[in-house]
Amino acid sequence: MRATTIHGVRDIRYTDVPDPVIAEPTDAIVRVTAACICGSDLWSYRGDNGPIERPRTIGHECLGEVVEVGSAVRTFRVGDHVLVPFDHCDNTCPACVAGYQSACVNHATTTSGQGEYARVAEADGTLFSLGGAPARDEIPDLLALTDVMATGWHAAVMSGVRPGGTAVVVGDGAVGLCGVIAAVELGAERVIAMSRHADRQRLAREFGATDIVASRGAEGEAAVAELTGGVGADYVLECVGNDAAMRTALHVARAGATVGFVGVPHGVEVPIRLLFDTNVGLKGGMAPVRGYVETLLDLVRAGRIDPGRVLDLALPVERAADGYRAMDERTAIKVQLTY
Amino acid sequence: MRATTIHGVRDIRYTDVPDPVIAEPTDAIVRVTAACICGSDLWSYRGDNGPIERPRTIGHECLGEVVEVGSAVRTFRVGDHVLVPFDHCDNTCPACVAGYQSACVNHATTTSGQGEYARVAEADGTLFSLGGAPARDEIPDLLALTDVMATGWHAAVMSGVRPGGTAVVVGDGAVGLCGVIAAVELGAERVIAMSRHADRQRLAREFGATDIVASRGAEGEAAVAELTGGVGADYVLECVGNDAAMRTALHVARAGATVGFVGVPHGVEVPIRLLFDTNVGLKGGMAPVRGYVETLLDLVRAGRIDPGRVLDLALPVERAADGYRAMDERTAIKVQLTY
Repeated sequence: MRATTIHGVRDIRYTDVPDPVIAEPTDAIVRVTAACICGSDLWSYRGDNGPIERPRTIGHECLGEVVEVGSAVRTFRVGDHVLVPFDHCDNTCPACVAGYQSACVNHATTTSGQGEYARVAEADGTLFSLGGAPARDEIPDLLALTDVMATGWHAAVMSGVRPGGTAVVVGDGAVGLCGVIAAVELGAERVIAMSRHADRQRLAREFGATDIVASRGAEGEAAVAELTGGVGADYVLECVGNDAAMRTALHVARAGATVGFVGVPHGVEVPIRLLFDTNVGLKGGMAPVRGYVETLLDLVRAGRIDPGRVLDLALPVERAADGYRAMDERTAIKVQLTY
Repeated sequence: MRATTIHGVRDIRYTDVPDPVIAEPTDAIVRVTAACICGSDLWSYRGDNGPIERPRTIGHECLGEVVEVGSAVRTFRVGDHVLVPFDHCDNTCPACVAGYQSACVNHATTTSGQGEYARVAEADGTLFSLGGAPARDEIPDLLALTDVMATGWHAAVMSGVRPGGTAVVVGDGAVGLCGVIAAVELGAERVIAMSRHADRQRLAREFGATDIVASRGAEGEAAVAELTGGVGADYVLECVGNDAAMRTALHVARAGATVGFVGVPHGVEVPIRLLFDTNVGLKGGMAPVRGYVETLLDLVRAGRIDPGRVLDLALPVERAADGYRAMDERTAIKVQLTY
């Protein structure tokens, strides 16, 4: 098949690779019908995940049509149109039952979601049936549900957002913007988006952010302190994953608040004494997409949320390299790859 | 006055020091009528808080009688018998109102609680009236409420203990043992105490622990894994404060559980990637004693909890040095100082 592959720092290609195959009887193979590029793909793209030893496929956000199922797959059959949560799970183990499908004992992830085909482990637990081919205008929202909307939602849930109070969202990438959507939907009265980019500030406001803080670091923290009367935020969503973002998140939280963190940690050092002194908690990690997808799809279909708007550039999958460049240079928030 | 003072590593004396005085109109001076030594006093005693530059008073757990009040104190008067939460708070600021009195904007701590007199900041917010001189046999329970019982309770609350499920308590000091009491009282179905000492194991069982794990490190973690069918605990109470205890706490937690930590962190490095991968949360810190004391006193007076049993040695305050030695050498769990 043809697939998006990474060969080194900022070296993305669309090349021939072996077709994925059924490796376990619980697997399915999906023909990808729509995909997108994730902010977390940029860690590899920028070399922040270490050297790329050999070329490999990349991409974990896609929709598709089932083209083959393993002998143990019961719920899906060839021809089914599905949403593919980026993190695969059996949805039956104790971690899944507790709502943490991202820590499933049989956890796996989509690895060729920007190619023609993708292997899905634990198909019965992982896949979500769309009940037919999705309408073209619904595709961006559905793509957002494979990862970023569920991840922003997870940040909000982990930080404990409930009706009333003030949320701060650190990070204005697609996940941060979806975090704004989530905080608003879960009832935060005030949602402060920390964002330096005019286009993202605008989208954050359209998603319901009540305040924008454009400065970062100590200056940004002071701005949040002023907005919250010196008290700090009741809920903080950390949607970046680097040390500066984590420190800001911890510093803008009020005593006893929880930082819901979903940015993949890179170089984060937790100031444990600060946590002790403030009773600010830290909870988060990889989002249990499969656990949230029904709720989120209901919200999309009810017209309450429209996370697909974070996809502000569409390119043919053959031009994935241009999409990565656009996200790296921040000329696009998030890129949809069309098939 | 005479007070317990620390002069260097393992150098505790009972010496003459200046009387504490009203420094702010919100202060009160309390004549100490009963006190005890805290496990956290041992950090200084052992030199783990850095060098003792000059002799100073030590001790933050006491009961007493009000002997002087500042001009702004409204609720208390000379002669009142009071329980002195170790962390002082105005009990009105946003942090206090949110239930985190330990992060009060006017936070202070008792500093001569093992002396004849102690200054209490924010007396109206901090002190808890006992409605008369406490009965002798009630004193140990009341002393436990000034810190360790409230701290163990905080660990349980922060870890989210609710009816059902399995709790693990890391640490068998007075706080850990009070953590067992708290986990049982808050409804954990199974409470696993990690303890290496026979006397403490026995007390943990009497407090309601259903299982004891005597091994530590990887071996202890494996034992908990076996007891929990490989899943891990629903709630973990970290009641030590060093890196080994924190790692064990994080490793015995099931996916998505929260480690309620109350051990004062010393050399703790948080493995943030482990938190991300498992969605195990971390929440805790200094206990808001004033926020818990009414609930806990009700439980004591109803006969539901008896945390005073962790005080297994009583010595005259003049012999405080012997008390520190006994706790350092683990021949006593916790020492009451009598007046």
